[in-house]
Amino acid sequence: MEFLNLVKLRQSSRAYEEKAVEREKIELVLEAGRLSPSANNAQSWTFVVANDTEIKNRVADAAYKMGGAFVRQAPVVIALVAEKPLLISRLGAALKKIDFTSLDMGIAAAHICLQAAETGLGTCMLESFDEKKVKTALNIPDNRRIALLITLGYPADKQREKKRKAFDELVRWNRY
Amino acid sequence: MEFLNLVKLRQSSRAYEEKAVEREKIELVLEAGRLSPSANNAQSWTFVVANDTEIKNRVADAAYKMGGAFVRQAPVVIALVAEKPLLISRLGAALKKIDFTSLDMGIAAAHICLQAAETGLGTCMLESFDEKKVKTALNIPDNRRIALLITLGYPADKQREKKRKAFDELVRWNRY
Repeated sequence: MEFLNLVKLRQSSRAYEEKAVEREKIELVLEAGRLSPSANNAQSWTFVVANDTEIKNRVADAAYKMGGAFVRQAPVVIALVAEKPLLISRLGAALKKIDFTSLDMGIAAAHICLQAAETGLGTCMLESFDEKKVKTALNIPDNRRIALLITLGYPADKQREKKRKAFDELVRWNRY
Repeated sequence: MEFLNLVKLRQSSRAYEEKAVEREKIELVLEAGRLSPSANNAQSWTFVVANDTEIKNRVADAAYKMGGAFVRQAPVVIALVAEKPLLISRLGAALKKIDFTSLDMGIAAAHICLQAAETGLGTCMLESFDEKKVKTALNIPDNRRIALLITLGYPADKQREKKRKAFDELVRWNRY
Protein backbone atom coordinates (compact mmCIF):
# COMPACT_ATOMS: atom_id res chain seq x y z
CA MET A 1 0.00 0.00 0.00
CA GLU A 2 1.22 3.51 -0.73
CA PHE A 3 2.17 5.24 2.48
CA LEU A 4 -0.23 8.15 1.97
CA ASN A 5 -3.11 5.68 1.58
CA LEU A 6 -2.06 4.00 4.80
CA VAL A 7 -2.08 7.42 6.49
CA LYS A 8 -5.62 7.96 5.18
CA LEU A 9 -6.71 4.48 6.27
CA ARG A 10 -5.55 4.93 9.88
CA GLN A 11 -8.21 6.55 11.99
CA SER A 12 -9.24 6.56 15.62
CA SER A 13 -11.42 3.46 15.97
CA ARG A 14 -13.98 3.79 18.73
CA ALA A 15 -15.89 0.55 18.05
CA TYR A 16 -14.45 -2.95 17.93
CA GLU A 17 -15.58 -6.42 16.93
CA GLU A 18 -15.86 -9.07 19.63
CA LYS A 19 -12.80 -10.90 18.35
CA ALA A 20 -9.40 -11.48 19.90
CA VAL A 21 -6.27 -10.22 18.14
CA GLU A 22 -3.80 -12.92 17.22
CA ARG A 23 -0.57 -12.80 19.22
CA GLU A 24 1.58 -12.57 16.05
CA LYS A 25 -0.37 -9.50 14.89
CA ILE A 26 0.12 -7.79 18.25
CA GLU A 27 3.82 -8.59 17.98
CA LEU A 28 4.03 -7.18 14.44
CA VAL A 29 2.46 -3.93 15.60
CA LEU A 30 4.89 -3.68 18.51
CA GLU A 31 7.82 -4.48 16.22
CA ALA A 32 7.06 -1.33 14.21
CA GLY A 33 7.17 0.57 17.50
CA ARG A 34 10.40 -1.09 18.52
CA LEU A 35 12.10 -0.01 15.29
CA SER A 36 11.00 3.62 15.54
CA PRO A 37 13.63 6.32 15.98
CA SER A 38 14.13 8.33 19.16
CA ALA A 39 16.30 11.27 20.19
CA ASN A 40 19.85 10.00 20.67
CA ASN A 41 18.40 6.52 20.07
CA ALA A 42 17.38 6.58 23.74
CA GLN A 43 14.43 4.18 23.26
CA SER A 44 13.35 5.15 26.76
CA TRP A 45 10.08 3.29 26.62
CA THR A 46 8.40 0.08 27.67
CA PHE A 47 5.32 -1.23 25.87
CA VAL A 48 2.97 -2.95 28.30
CA VAL A 49 0.32 -5.02 26.51
CA ALA A 50 -2.93 -5.75 28.30
CA ASN A 51 -4.59 -8.64 26.44
CA ASP A 52 -5.81 -10.63 29.42
CA THR A 53 -9.51 -9.70 29.47
CA GLU A 54 -9.72 -9.07 33.19
CA ILE A 55 -6.58 -6.94 33.33
CA LYS A 56 -7.49 -5.14 30.10
CA ASN A 57 -10.90 -4.27 31.54
CA ARG A 58 -9.28 -2.77 34.62
CA VAL A 59 -7.22 -0.57 32.30
CA ALA A 60 -10.34 0.26 30.26
CA ASP A 61 -12.19 1.32 33.38
CA ALA A 62 -9.39 3.78 34.11
CA ALA A 63 -9.82 5.43 30.71
CA TYR A 64 -12.56 7.75 31.81
CA LYS A 65 -12.47 10.20 28.94
CA MET A 66 -14.57 9.78 25.78
CA GLY A 67 -16.87 7.40 27.60
CA GLY A 68 -14.34 4.64 27.87
CA ALA A 69 -17.02 2.17 26.74
CA PHE A 70 -15.21 1.45 23.48
CA VAL A 71 -11.99 0.81 25.40
CA ARG A 72 -13.80 -2.07 27.07
CA GLN A 73 -14.78 -3.36 23.60
CA ALA A 74 -11.15 -3.39 22.43
CA PRO A 75 -9.54 -6.76 23.17
CA VAL A 76 -6.10 -5.19 23.64
CA VAL A 77 -4.79 -2.01 25.22
CA ILE A 78 -1.12 -1.04 24.97
CA ALA A 79 0.41 1.31 27.53
CA LEU A 80 3.40 3.34 26.34
CA VAL A 81 5.48 3.84 29.46
CA ALA A 82 8.18 6.49 29.53
CA GLU A 83 11.35 5.35 31.21
CA LYS A 84 13.75 7.92 32.58
CA PRO A 85 15.07 10.01 29.71
CA LEU A 86 18.79 10.06 29.05
CA LEU A 87 20.67 12.92 30.64
CA ILE A 88 21.22 14.60 27.28
CA SER A 89 17.46 14.56 26.58
CA ARG A 90 16.71 16.01 29.99
CA LEU A 91 19.29 18.75 29.48
CA GLY A 92 17.81 19.48 26.07
CA ALA A 93 14.32 19.60 27.47
CA ALA A 94 15.41 21.94 30.22
CA LEU A 95 17.14 24.21 27.73
CA LYS A 96 14.41 24.21 25.11
CA LYS A 97 11.26 23.49 27.07
CA ILE A 98 10.58 20.72 24.59
CA ASP A 99 9.77 17.33 26.04
CA PHE A 100 11.92 14.94 23.99
CA THR A 101 10.45 11.87 25.64
CA SER A 102 6.92 12.89 24.69
CA LEU A 103 8.14 13.62 21.18
CA ASP A 104 9.70 10.15 20.97
CA MET A 105 6.52 8.60 22.34
CA GLY A 106 4.57 10.27 19.56
CA ILE A 107 6.88 8.74 16.96
CA ALA A 108 6.48 5.25 18.43
CA ALA A 109 2.70 5.68 18.70
CA ALA A 110 2.50 6.69 15.04
CA HIS A 111 4.50 3.61 14.01
CA ILE A 112 2.28 1.35 16.11
CA CYS A 113 -0.99 2.78 14.76
CA LEU A 114 0.14 2.77 11.12
CA GLN A 115 1.35 -0.84 11.35
CA ALA A 116 -1.97 -1.79 12.93
CA ALA A 117 -3.90 -0.13 10.09
CA GLU A 118 -1.89 -2.07 7.50
CA THR A 119 -2.62 -5.27 9.44
CA GLY A 120 -6.37 -4.60 9.32
CA LEU A 121 -6.54 -3.52 12.95
CA GLY A 122 -8.02 -0.41 14.48
CA THR A 123 -6.40 1.76 17.12
CA CYS A 124 -7.19 4.79 19.20
CA MET A 125 -4.63 6.84 21.10
CA LEU A 126 -5.88 7.81 24.53
CA GLU A 127 -4.17 10.57 26.42
CA SER A 128 -6.76 11.03 29.16
CA PHE A 129 -7.05 8.31 31.78
CA ASP A 130 -6.61 7.73 35.47
CA GLU A 131 -2.89 7.07 35.41
CA LYS A 132 -2.77 5.75 38.97
CA LYS A 133 -5.43 3.15 38.24
CA VAL A 134 -3.67 2.04 35.05
CA LYS A 135 -0.42 1.72 36.99
CA THR A 136 -2.14 -0.43 39.58
CA ALA A 137 -3.79 -2.63 36.92
CA LEU A 138 -0.48 -3.21 35.10
CA ASN A 139 1.87 -3.14 38.07
CA ILE A 140 3.75 -0.15 36.67
CA PRO A 141 6.09 1.52 39.19
CA ASP A 142 4.96 4.83 40.65
CA ASN A 143 7.97 6.73 39.31
CA ARG A 144 7.20 5.91 35.68
CA ARG A 145 4.93 8.00 33.47
CA ILE A 146 2.40 6.54 31.08
CA ALA A 147 2.54 8.76 28.01
CA LEU A 148 -0.53 7.26 26.37
CA LEU A 149 -2.71 4.21 25.94
CA ILE A 150 -3.48 2.69 22.54
CA THR A 151 -6.52 0.48 22.03
CA LEU A 152 -6.11 -2.33 19.50
CA GLY A 153 -8.68 -4.61 17.90
CA TYR A 154 -10.65 -5.42 14.78
CA PRO A 155 -12.45 -2.17 13.99
CA ALA A 156 -16.24 -2.03 13.73
CA ASP A 157 -16.54 1.60 12.68
CA LYS A 158 -16.80 2.97 9.16
CA GLN A 159 -14.02 4.77 7.35
CA ARG A 160 -14.41 8.52 7.85
CA GLU A 161 -13.15 11.47 5.85
CA LYS A 162 -10.30 13.25 7.64
CA LYS A 163 -10.95 16.76 8.88
CA ARG A 164 -7.74 18.69 8.65
CA LYS A 165 -6.64 22.28 8.17
CA ALA A 166 -5.96 23.28 4.56
CA PHE A 167 -2.44 22.71 3.25
CA ASP A 168 -1.80 26.41 2.64
CA GLU A 169 -2.92 27.25 6.14
CA LEU A 170 -0.30 24.95 7.67
CA VAL A 171 2.65 25.28 5.33
CA ARG A 172 4.87 28.33 4.89
CA TRP A 173 7.77 28.69 2.50
CA ASN A 174 11.02 30.25 3.77
CA ARG A 175 9.14 32.68 6.01
CA TYR A 176 6.63 32.02 8.79
CA MET B 1 6.04 -1.35 0.12
CA GLU B 2 5.16 -3.18 3.32
CA PHE B 3 5.04 -0.74 6.19
CA LEU B 4 7.64 -2.59 8.25
CA ASN B 5 10.07 -2.40 5.33
CA LEU B 6 9.44 1.32 5.09
CA VAL B 7 10.18 1.59 8.81
CA LYS B 8 13.46 -0.25 8.21
CA LEU B 9 14.29 1.91 5.19
CA ARG B 10 13.85 5.21 7.06
CA GLN B 11 17.03 6.22 8.79
CA SER B 12 18.71 9.42 9.88
CA SER B 13 20.52 10.62 6.76
CA ARG B 14 23.56 12.72 7.56
CA ALA B 15 24.89 13.06 3.99
CA TYR B 16 23.03 14.44 0.99
CA GLU B 17 23.52 14.66 -2.75
CA GLU B 18 23.94 18.08 -4.30
CA LYS B 19 20.52 17.97 -5.86
CA ALA B 20 17.40 20.03 -5.26
CA VAL B 21 14.20 18.33 -4.14
CA GLU B 22 11.27 18.80 -6.50
CA ARG B 23 8.51 21.01 -5.11
CA GLU B 24 5.86 18.27 -5.58
CA LYS B 25 7.94 15.82 -3.54
CA ILE B 26 8.28 18.33 -0.71
CA GLU B 27 4.52 18.85 -0.85
CA LEU B 28 3.84 15.10 -0.75
CA VAL B 29 5.99 14.75 2.35
CA LEU B 30 4.19 17.64 4.04
CA GLU B 31 0.81 16.21 3.04
CA ALA B 32 1.58 13.09 5.10
CA GLY B 33 2.31 15.42 8.00
CA ARG B 34 -0.87 17.39 7.44
CA LEU B 35 -2.98 14.22 7.61
CA SER B 36 -1.40 12.97 10.83
CA PRO B 37 -3.56 12.69 13.95
CA SER B 38 -3.20 14.93 16.99
CA ALA B 39 -4.77 15.05 20.45
CA ASN B 40 -8.31 16.41 20.10
CA ASN B 41 -7.44 16.97 16.42
CA ALA B 42 -5.75 20.19 17.58
CA GLN B 43 -3.27 20.29 14.65
CA SER B 44 -1.46 22.98 16.56
CA TRP B 45 1.48 23.17 14.21
CA THR B 46 2.91 25.11 11.30
CA PHE B 47 5.42 23.56 8.92
CA VAL B 48 7.94 26.14 7.75
CA VAL B 49 9.95 24.93 4.76
CA ALA B 50 13.36 26.44 4.09
CA ASN B 51 14.27 25.59 0.51
CA ASP B 52 15.77 28.92 -0.52
CA THR B 53 19.48 28.16 -0.33
CA GLU B 54 20.46 31.32 1.51
CA ILE B 55 17.68 31.07 4.10
CA LYS B 56 18.19 27.30 4.47
CA ASN B 57 21.89 27.88 5.13
CA ARG B 58 21.08 30.36 7.87
CA VAL B 59 18.91 27.67 9.47
CA ALA B 60 21.68 25.10 8.96
CA ASP B 61 24.20 27.34 10.69
CA ALA B 62 21.88 27.45 13.72
CA ALA B 63 21.90 23.66 13.98
CA TYR B 64 25.06 23.46 15.99
CA LYS B 65 24.75 19.91 17.28
CA MET B 66 26.18 16.91 15.43
CA GLY B 67 28.43 19.18 13.42
CA GLY B 68 25.68 20.76 11.44
CA ALA B 69 27.77 20.32 8.29
CA PHE B 70 25.34 17.82 6.83
CA VAL B 71 22.47 20.23 7.49
CA ARG B 72 24.18 22.60 5.07
CA GLN B 73 24.34 19.76 2.52
CA ALA B 74 20.60 19.15 2.75
CA PRO B 75 18.72 21.27 0.18
CA VAL B 76 15.66 21.55 2.43
CA VAL B 77 15.06 21.99 6.15
CA ILE B 78 11.55 21.85 7.60
CA ALA B 79 10.83 23.52 10.94
CA LEU B 80 7.94 22.06 12.94
CA VAL B 81 6.56 25.00 14.86
CA ALA B 82 4.25 24.42 17.82
CA GLU B 83 1.33 26.78 17.93
CA LYS B 84 -0.43 27.39 21.21
CA PRO B 85 -2.01 24.14 22.34
CA LEU B 86 -5.76 23.99 22.84
CA LEU B 87 -6.93 24.61 26.39
CA ILE B 88 -7.87 20.96 26.85
CA SER B 89 -4.33 19.87 25.90
CA ARG B 90 -2.82 22.38 28.27
CA LEU B 91 -5.06 21.21 31.09
CA GLY B 92 -4.17 17.61 30.31
CA ALA B 93 -0.48 18.43 30.26
CA ALA B 94 -0.74 20.24 33.58
CA LEU B 95 -2.59 17.33 35.13
CA LYS B 96 -0.44 14.57 33.73
CA LYS B 97 2.92 16.21 33.16
CA ILE B 98 2.77 14.89 29.61
CA ASP B 99 3.41 17.37 26.86
CA PHE B 100 0.65 16.65 24.35
CA THR B 101 1.99 19.14 21.83
CA SER B 102 5.40 17.44 21.78
CA LEU B 103 3.66 14.09 21.47
CA ASP B 104 1.66 15.37 18.48
CA MET B 105 4.82 16.80 16.96
CA GLY B 106 6.43 13.37 17.18
CA ILE B 107 3.52 11.84 15.29
CA ALA B 108 3.72 14.45 12.52
CA ALA B 109 7.52 14.07 12.32
CA ALA B 110 7.18 10.30 11.94
CA HIS B 111 4.66 10.74 9.11
CA ILE B 112 6.93 13.23 7.35
CA CYS B 113 10.04 11.07 7.61
CA LEU B 114 8.28 7.86 6.54
CA GLN B 115 6.69 9.56 3.53
CA ALA B 116 10.09 10.95 2.60
CA ALA B 117 11.66 7.49 2.79
CA GLU B 118 9.01 6.07 0.46
CA THR B 119 9.66 8.96 -1.94
CA GLY B 120 13.38 8.14 -2.04
CA LEU B 121 14.35 11.04 0.18
CA GLY B 122 16.46 11.12 3.30
CA THR B 123 15.62 12.94 6.51
CA CYS B 124 17.15 13.63 9.88
CA MET B 125 15.25 14.93 12.89
CA LEU B 126 17.22 17.58 14.73
CA GLU B 127 16.24 18.51 18.23
CA SER B 128 19.31 20.53 19.14
CA PHE B 129 19.74 23.91 17.49
CA ASP B 130 19.92 27.58 18.32
CA GLU B 131 16.19 28.24 18.39
CA LYS B 132 16.55 32.01 18.42
CA LYS B 133 18.71 31.97 15.28
CA VAL B 134 16.28 29.68 13.49
CA LYS B 135 13.41 31.97 14.45
CA THR B 136 15.28 34.94 13.06
CA ALA B 137 16.13 33.13 9.81
CA LEU B 138 12.52 32.06 9.24
CA ASN B 139 10.77 35.07 10.76
CA ILE B 140 9.07 32.90 13.38
CA PRO B 141 7.44 34.90 16.22
CA ASP B 142 9.21 34.87 19.56
CA ASN B 143 6.27 33.29 21.39
CA ARG B 144 6.26 30.18 19.24
CA ARG B 145 8.32 27.07 19.97
CA ILE B 146 10.19 25.10 17.34
CA ALA B 147 9.77 21.47 18.34
CA LEU B 148 12.27 20.15 15.84
CA LEU B 149 13.94 20.59 12.48
CA ILE B 150 13.89 17.94 9.78
CA THR B 151 16.47 17.91 7.01
CA LEU B 152 15.27 16.68 3.62
CA GLY B 153 17.20 15.73 0.52
CA TYR B 154 18.45 12.92 -1.69
CA PRO B 155 20.47 10.77 0.70
CA ALA B 156 24.12 10.00 0.06
CA ASP B 157 24.67 7.64 2.97
CA LYS B 158 24.47 3.86 2.99
CA GLN B 159 21.64 1.88 4.51
CA ARG B 160 22.58 0.92 8.06
CA GLU B 161 21.36 -1.87 10.30
CA LYS B 162 19.12 -0.53 13.07
CA LYS B 163 20.42 -0.79 16.62
CA ARG B 164 17.47 -1.31 18.91
CA LYS B 165 16.79 -2.96 22.24
CA ALA B 166 15.58 -6.56 22.02
CA PHE B 167 11.85 -7.11 21.69
CA ASP B 168 11.56 -8.97 25.00
CA GLU B 169 13.40 -6.19 26.78
CA LEU B 170 10.83 -3.59 25.68
CA VAL B 171 7.58 -5.53 25.69
CA ARG B 172 5.71 -6.79 28.77
CA TRP B 173 2.47 -8.74 28.79
CA ASN B 174 -0.25 -7.77 31.27
CA ARG B 175 2.28 -6.83 33.92
CA TYR B 176 5.16 -4.35 33.85
